[in-house]
Amino acid sequence: MRNLKIDGKRLWDDIHETGTIGGTAKGGVRRLTLSDEDRRVRDWFKAQCEALGCSVTVDAVGNMFALRPGKNPNLPPIAMGSHLDTQPSGGKFDGVLGVLAGLEALRTLHDNGVETEAPFLLVNWTNEEGSRFTPAVMGSGAFAGALKVEDVHAKADRDGVTFAQAIDAIGYRGAAPVGGRKLSAYFELHIEQGPFLEAEGKTIGVVTHVQGMRWFNGVCTGVDGHAGATPMFKRADALLSVARLVDRIDKIARSHGPTAVGTIGELTPAAPSINVVQGEVRFTIDLRDPKDEVLEVMEAEVRAAAAEIAAMNGTSFVIERIWKAAPIPFDADCVAAVREAAAISSHATRDCISGASHDAAYVQSVAPAAMIFIPSADGLSHNELESSSFDDCAAGAQVLLDAALLYDSRLAGR
Amino acid sequence: MRNLKIDGKRLWDDIHETGTIGGTAKGGVRRLTLSDEDRRVRDWFKAQCEALGCSVTVDAVGNMFALRPGKNPNLPPIAMGSHLDTQPSGGKFDGVLGVLAGLEALRTLHDNGVETEAPFLLVNWTNEEGSRFTPAVMGSGAFAGALKVEDVHAKADRDGVTFAQAIDAIGYRGAAPVGGRKLSAYFELHIEQGPFLEAEGKTIGVVTHVQGMRWFNGVCTGVDGHAGATPMFKRADALLSVARLVDRIDKIARSHGPTAVGTIGELTPAAPSINVVQGEVRFTIDLRDPKDEVLEVMEAEVRAAAAEIAAMNGTSFVIERIWKAAPIPFDADCVAAVREAAAISSHATRDCISGASHDAAYVQSVAPAAMIFIPSADGLSHNELESSSFDDCAAGAQVLLDAALLYDSRLAGR
Repeated sequence: MRNLKIDGKRLWDDIHETGTIGGTAKGGVRRLTLSDEDRRVRDWFKAQCEALGCSVTVDAVGNMFALRPGKNPNLPPIAMGSHLDTQPSGGKFDGVLGVLAGLEALRTLHDNGVETEAPFLLVNWTNEEGSRFTPAVMGSGAFAGALKVEDVHAKADRDGVTFAQAIDAIGYRGAAPVGGRKLSAYFELHIEQGPFLEAEGKTIGVVTHVQGMRWFNGVCTGVDGHAGATPMFKRADALLSVARLVDRIDKIARSHGPTAVGTIGELTPAAPSINVVQGEVRFTIDLRDPKDEVLEVMEAEVRAAAAEIAAMNGTSFVIERIWKAAPIPFDADCVAAVREAAAISSHATRDCISGASHDAAYVQSVAPAAMIFIPSADGLSHNELESSSFDDCAAGAQVLLDAALLYDSRLAGR
Repeated sequence: MRNLKIDGKRLWDDIHETGTIGGTAKGGVRRLTLSDEDRRVRDWFKAQCEALGCSVTVDAVGNMFALRPGKNPNLPPIAMGSHLDTQPSGGKFDGVLGVLAGLEALRTLHDNGVETEAPFLLVNWTNEEGSRFTPAVMGSGAFAGALKVEDVHAKADRDGVTFAQAIDAIGYRGAAPVGGRKLSAYFELHIEQGPFLEAEGKTIGVVTHVQGMRWFNGVCTGVDGHAGATPMFKRADALLSVARLVDRIDKIARSHGPTAVGTIGELTPAAPSINVVQGEVRFTIDLRDPKDEVLEVMEAEVRAAAAEIAAMNGTSFVIERIWKAAPIPFDADCVAAVREAAAISSHATRDCISGASHDAAYVQSVAPAAMIFIPSADGLSHNELESSSFDDCAAGAQVLLDAALLYDSRLAGR
């Protein structure tokens, strides 16, 4: 394998150029999926890939595939990619980095006249963020067969515009079928969206798993009361019970630390009023851990805590599990390629578990996949202030290229 | 003083007759202030009073005054009353009982040909509940000079209908000026809306005070985070901080028990989402106690608890006091009259502190006043299921009449 060097400056310029498409005053990006801003960045992306001689195809949910031929057309391509859509108040790096680093990798191959064994494929997945159309990771989910194309097309945004209308409006409903496309491997570079790499001074995160996840809807029922006339000993305050559960979930997650997390992100009193003891409160729970058996214990502990709290003040809980995603281990060979690629550049690495979901998690269900993380300042993401350094972006792109080439050289050796 | 007996059956029938005006399927009443149901019950009330020879005047905010002359027209009247409006899901007793018991008292005087020393005055205050137009206790507040008439007229309901439009629509904007009317005394019978009388098997509550009250708006600020990617040790979870404050306020109130109460009735995450650690949460606090010095300590303890909680997880609190009402002691002579009246009928009594506000609290600022409570089943109120027994309603009406007559006999003796 030749010692190819990506051009960090070119990548950095691309990040800032695309950052102007939907750019915000605070330096962030608002580029909702299938919006006019999305169309503009897609047009830009297509032109850049075609300038390298790649053929760009688009499937029926708007996933974009730029193909660079290899020596052996019978090998399924080695893919890289991520997404170009952002949160409503997103940053310049989340998703974008993975696509642009893949583009920089293709440019480096092109500039050096490298012919890979397998074709190389660069993917821009549609609607990873899920801010305009839910659920998130939609394009890769459809590609992996987890979502039906007709269901995706029928999704509507808050204004009642369907996915089908929106994709037609920007001209990105492609002719290619969704999914059923073999990949030799898939590598995705992403900012960490967490604090570990920065805190430990490591440059490259070797992502071994995506965390398992359990989501719950809960309702606590007590008895409404007049805040002035209902003495404390007579209350069955549903808000108090849920407040205590919030505290207990924090303690439960910490007791399984450092990987486990537990969050109450929604809490809605039924009859909010300054002078009313709340008789009903709805809430959500999000539990995550890389081990399913830990999640099983956490769920049992949360349910036991709720029962104990309920008994203390005459309230009752109903907690319903609405989603369960098992932890996803990435492909061992792909992970090994990432680790070796980092060693080529002598980068300090750390094994990471992705707390967030990513396109790579869906791809892993149909092809060998792995992810590479680089540090994000303060662990911020989904935030206009998210930021990663020039050097870390360049390091990530280099590891992405090298991991793909290492995998490619093994295909050649088989 | 003659031994006059009110007619419990007649009172009970009135309660059930007025309960059909806005009556609900569950046995409750929905009779919002200045609605057509309110007009119907006002028409009924006016007709009943006029049938007893009383003259009924209405002031510019719709307060209704039925006057029964006494021997000495130079004495300000002895008043009784409460309100005929209800909560949207109200019961048959809250407010209504005080007006109808006053009507029953007037009927008893009428049937027995009693001529009192002072005139007797029966009042139906407008908009005690505050459900349609805020604030509550509006009619008595305007009467006492705490609210300006033009401000009351300008209040609008959720549909944009102003108080002035609503009162004109039902024809109850009267010619009489609001307030400036001397009263010798004011007695108000009301259901307890609390559990003490029922729990202790007492029939009559001698209400000595209305609790003091402090209201606060609060906001807790932390840092938004991704529920999957933000490890527990990196979080500044505003919802967790507010949850802990809810628990602390419960403990603070209990430590000043049994009279003190503390309630968080509103709690609103800024960006509710199942997978987001909340960076901002708004909430309210309601603290009450019959002693202002206890409220002072409670407020200080709540602020100290917030500071302590904030320091634990990198969040911060801003807590602003938006209202402060000092405890209101009722008039000693009026309270004594209630106590003696209960003794005449050998009713078991208990001194009570009103946790809720009442028209009597405003009247007390311009005339000697007191209140009488009777048990309400399970302490329920603002609830279609609120209920008081036939015997307790009759006992309350008897004590109301006797307290007014005792006070009247003292005026005669001066």
